[in-house]
Formats: sequence, C-alpha cells, structure tokens
Amino acid sequence: MKPVYFDSAATTKVRDEVIDAMTLCIKNEYGNASSTHSFGRSSKVLIEQTRKTIANELQVSAGEIIFTSGGTEADNLAIQCAVRDLGISHIITSKIEHHAVLHTIEQLNRTINVKVSYVKLDKDGAVDFGDLERLLQSPGKTLVSLMHVNNEIGNILDVKRVGELCHSYEALFHCDAVQSIGHYKWDLQDVKVDFLAASAHKFHGPKGIGFLFIRKHSGLKPLIFGGEQERGIRAGTESVHNIVGLETAFKLSYGNLKSERDYILELKQYFKNELIKTFPGVAFNGLSGDLEKSTYTLLNVCLPLSKEKGLTLMFQLDLKGIACSKGSACQSGSTKGSHVLEEILDDEYLNRPSIRFSFSKYNTKSEVDYLVSVLKEFVGS
Amino acid sequence: MKPVYFDSAATTKVRDEVIDAMTLCIKNEYGNASSTHSFGRSSKVLIEQTRKTIANELQVSAGEIIFTSGGTEADNLAIQCAVRDLGISHIITSKIEHHAVLHTIEQLNRTINVKVSYVKLDKDGAVDFGDLERLLQSPGKTLVSLMHVNNEIGNILDVKRVGELCHSYEALFHCDAVQSIGHYKWDLQDVKVDFLAASAHKFHGPKGIGFLFIRKHSGLKPLIFGGEQERGIRAGTESVHNIVGLETAFKLSYGNLKSERDYILELKQYFKNELIKTFPGVAFNGLSGDLEKSTYTLLNVCLPLSKEKGLTLMFQLDLKGIACSKGSACQSGSTKGSHVLEEILDDEYLNRPSIRFSFSKYNTKSEVDYLVSVLKEFVGS
Repeated sequence: MKPVYFDSAATTKVRDEVIDAMTLCIKNEYGNASSTHSFGRSSKVLIEQTRKTIANELQVSAGEIIFTSGGTEADNLAIQCAVRDLGISHIITSKIEHHAVLHTIEQLNRTINVKVSYVKLDKDGAVDFGDLERLLQSPGKTLVSLMHVNNEIGNILDVKRVGELCHSYEALFHCDAVQSIGHYKWDLQDVKVDFLAASAHKFHGPKGIGFLFIRKHSGLKPLIFGGEQERGIRAGTESVHNIVGLETAFKLSYGNLKSERDYILELKQYFKNELIKTFPGVAFNGLSGDLEKSTYTLLNVCLPLSKEKGLTLMFQLDLKGIACSKGSACQSGSTKGSHVLEEILDDEYLNRPSIRFSFSKYNTKSEVDYLVSVLKEFVGS
Repeated sequence: MKPVYFDSAATTKVRDEVIDAMTLCIKNEYGNASSTHSFGRSSKVLIEQTRKTIANELQVSAGEIIFTSGGTEADNLAIQCAVRDLGISHIITSKIEHHAVLHTIEQLNRTINVKVSYVKLDKDGAVDFGDLERLLQSPGKTLVSLMHVNNEIGNILDVKRVGELCHSYEALFHCDAVQSIGHYKWDLQDVKVDFLAASAHKFHGPKGIGFLFIRKHSGLKPLIFGGEQERGIRAGTESVHNIVGLETAFKLSYGNLKSERDYILELKQYFKNELIKTFPGVAFNGLSGDLEKSTYTLLNVCLPLSKEKGLTLMFQLDLKGIACSKGSACQSGSTKGSHVLEEILDDEYLNRPSIRFSFSKYNTKSEVDYLVSVLKEFVGS
C-alpha cells in the first residue's frame, strides 16, 4: 500500500495545473514587478490579475487584497497593526484559535498590555454569542478575532452574525479564514469582516503565499517596511510564481467547489459511518461529527482506547503509511497535546487518543477502507 | 533583437536547475514540515539540508540560519526585533541603504523615538570610518545597519572593519547582504556581523524566499508569531519548494563563483571601456566605475546629456527591448528619483540621466554591443 494522506488540513497536495502554471511563470516571467520595463510590467500584470480574480470572487475591490507570505503573516499583519495603528486596546478571541492568532495576541498582551478576553465556548467549542455580546460592551476600541472554520475540530462559525454584532458595537472583526477560503464561498459585501486571512497551500496551492483582505480605508500600515509593493502595505519583492500558483489553485477550487465538496463530504460521511459501525464508543470531537455544523474536510475522532494504548497509535499509523495529525501541524513539533482539545474535552475524553483526519479530492473510498482496517487491527491487537 | 536584460540587481533570471529542483519538490514533497508523519519529515529534511548548506558555506551553525520570505522581511526581523528585544536605543545607518532598512528605521524613529544617526559618506558614497567611530561613542545600546554591496552604485563596504569597530564599542552589526550573498564569499567566523540578510532571487533563485543569519544566543524574538517553525523565531508553514530552489541556486552560485565572476567582470570592464570610448564625458556614479571597490555585477552610468533629453531615455531603451533601471526596482514605482544618487551627486550630475546597468552570467558581449549602439543612436539623435 502506498502512503495515504489524510492530513489536508495541515497542507494539501498541489494540483498539477498549479505546478504547470508556476513552472511556466518562473521560467518566463522573472522580472521584478516593481521594475518599469517590459520584464517588470509583465510580472506586475500577473500579480494584478490574481488580485482581481480573488477580489471578484469575494465581492471586494482589488485594492483590498494584500499578498503575504501566508496565513500566519496575514494574521500577524491584521492583529499587530490594528493594535499599533488603529487604537485597539481590547481584543476578543477564543482559546481554540490557531497559534498564529493566539500567540500574536499573547505577545501584544505581554509587551504592551493589550487587554484580552476569551469568549466562552460550549463543550463542542461553539462560541457563546451572549458572552460575545457581553464582552463587546467593555470599554475601549475592540478587535474581535475568530476563525471561520476551526482547523482542528472543523466547527463553522456564523461569521455573518459575528460581523453584525461587531458592527453594532463598532468593533473591528478579523477572521482567520485559512481553513475556509478555497472551500467555502464568501461574499464580503454581506459579511462584515474588516480583515480576513487566507493561505494558498490549504487549497492545493503553493506554500509561502497567502493574502489578507483589508477593508478599504482601514488605516493599516505595514508590518514589514521597505519598498512600495502591495499599495505600500507589504514591502518585499513579490513571489510572482507563488502568486500565479495561488491564482490557479483559487480558480480551480471555486470553479469545482460544488462537485469537490460533494465528493469529499460523501467520503467524510462514509468514514464516520464506518467508524461508528466498527468502534462502539467512538466519539467525534467538537462539532466535527455534525455534517451541517462542521467543515466537510475533516473529522476529529476520539477512539475508545486507553491512554497507554493511544500513545503508540500515531506511530503505528505512520508505520502503515497513513498520514494524519494529533492536532494542527503547527504544534506537532512540540510534545504538548492539542490546545483546542484541552480547552473543550473533559478528562475522560482527553485521556483517550484523538486524531484529526482531513480529506481532499485526492482521497478515495478505498483509502478510507484501508484506514478503517488499520485502525481495527490496532484496536483489536 | 529579443529583449535584453540588464537589470540583474533588481532580480535575476532563475537558473534552469533551480526550476527543475523546485518543480520536482512541489510535485512530490507536499508535506507540512511541522507534521510528524512521513510526508512531513520528508519536507523537514529538505529544509534542514538547505539550512546546513548555507551554514557550511558561511562558516556558521545551522541553527543560526532563519528562513524568511525574502531580504526585506529579513531586514525587518533584524532591525525591528533588535530594537524591541535587545534594548537598542540608537541606530547608526547611512542615507544610501535600501528602503527595507531605511523605512524600517524611520518607522522606529517615528513611533518609538529610537535615535538614528546617519554616518557621513564621501562624494562616492563611501563610509567615513572616522565618523562611524565617533557615532559609536554615543551613549545607549547601538545597532549599526550598513549594507555590504550597495544595490544602486555597487560600493563594497569593508564589513570586516565595520564588524571590528562595532565589536570594540559593544554595538550590534546588521548587514544587508542582499546584493552580496551568492556573489561574494563570506566567512562569518572572521567577519563580526550579528545579523545578515540575504535573498534568493538576487542569485538566480526564486522570489519569496531569503534568510537572516542571527548570531547564536542573540535573544531575538519573532516578528511573525504563531507556530514553532524556524526554532520559534519565524512562524508560518515553510515554503519548501522555494527553500529547495534557494539551496540549488546557492550551491550553483558558490560552486561557480570564480568562473562566473570572471566572466561578468570582463563584461562590465568591456561595457565601461566602450562607454568611455563612445561618450566623452560619461561618468560612473559612486564607486561603480572602480573595478576593485565595487561589485562586478553593476555599473551606474551618468550620461553626458541634458535633463530634457534624459527624460525620454528610459522610455527609448524600453522600446528597444533593453531592461535597466534608474535606481532600485523597489522605488521605480514612485515618481521620485534615486535617494542614493540624490545623497551623493552634486546638482550638475544629478541633472543628467543616470542608469544602473546590472549583469549576470546570462549576458553576452553582443548584448553589450547592442546596448552601446542603442545608447549611441539615442545620444546622437
């Protein structure tokens, strides 16, 4: 059996069309987009075309899309610079955000004493809107940072509702949409976000490129200073081939959104049903077992096993060629467990092994069958 | 005549070997380097291998190399975080640094009142070492930021001397080596820099990747917070294909350094001689006409023409398919002239058109002949 990849929430296999477009670009379009000669102008056209593609899909203007080196930089740009430039003195977030958001906010709290409030969550990690509204009534200019699709448990946030609440309390709303862009449609005329972060490698694009949507007239200044690239908001020679790769991936993701979603959702449902049939007592963390309230791209599974047995599970799966994750990839280097599961699970479930399996259009039912058979063998052994 | 590229100081044509390595990587190695499964470990190996390649060449340890999205981010990381984390209250720099350095320092001066001193330069833009030593005697913990090879006029700084001066006054030394790495050998055991910024696209590698050398135990914390990538100093999923491209370009640049330098230097010398023969009164800005004291990769030419005639020169060259630059690419979007030439030239020369021609191994003598003939035609017209 060749290796099976069930970790698309960590990063995705790059589409062939994306690789082809990038290779062609890097071969022929090597001009610096800031140069005014033909080589430079040609690169500039590719960048502006990508900006327009994204803006059109999200219903915003091209000038509101700023390319970054990825989702993490986009989150940092929004949060750090909103505090520095827009007079934010209070940030509302949740304990189950990505570290790109949490660690940035913690740093601002530590160094310049920005007040931080963590919104209450229920046992499935869903945001308590009553508590959010209560927190929004605190004095001081407020930034709310909440993600659309949780990268570990797949919970989908009602961003329209959050945007309206923020708007009514004159708070700014930053949304980490890294697990959402390329998988869900957005209309930013309808959803009142001020900042939205995205990353190409989460939707079959290249690593090292992402963007931040910044609502017009925001007043945001750069995190990275230098040249006048990106409307003066993000300096540094643009990674043209990566931007072209982002565009290709973005177009293909939205062009095939429905068929790919249907396919992946069916896989998730099939996997969930097989697990329930095979392992009485299996549980699904967060809302990931709820096909309506969680993303179709992942299932976070809590297996009915002892802690001791659980310790070797990841190792065994890896030996069998199955790639999956305990939590987000970004924390897997550390020996700590998932900060998300620690926040929402009680001790009984926290002591059992939990694994995030995440899917893409490249997965198949036979891969799911193989995965279930490996799990079954392990549990029975 | 097909387009001729004389703007390699802005960015370079990517080597075929680099493109091949990147294409292979992005096709096969799509794991997130933070993932612990086989896909992730495989990506991690490529990144750590690149880190070692760089570290070995520069005579440092691998842990001292931190990948960034490019030279601009590397400059920002060094300067912004040295001020924030290392108690720097005084920065010494020069008026002819790259904007990635200058604008970052200006921002720190504006927002948190860091004291900034600009070292005296002579009429060729060479640093006045006496003045530098005098400035180093000012009170307060000091960071010196001076570039090795000036991107507009090619001046080479005696970085060993600067490093020793800084060391003797307990100042930190950051060197923007973006125009140097890949073109000049460095031994960081010998040269006392604390931080050194580099960018792959200046030596035939991809855009969107660079690195910062950070001397061990620096105490520097991230500019971009999030996951634990890059020893906890730079969060964000690594751009593995770009890092692989960087390694390939780096190896080929240093593997062929002497032969390529000899070839390019001969081209520069030939071009210079042709210009002197053809245009009595031609001048070379900064030290770029001095083959010993400037980089072999560029010549900044001041043509004996009126301001009025000069205005259409860039346009005419572009029409003839010749790519070159008035100053750095990063400022060419603006209507302003070069901040470097404005700093060093007197009015007589400032009113004449100056152009930076920069070379690579891909240029030929016949391209130089074509360039000279186009210039001749223009001047005579």
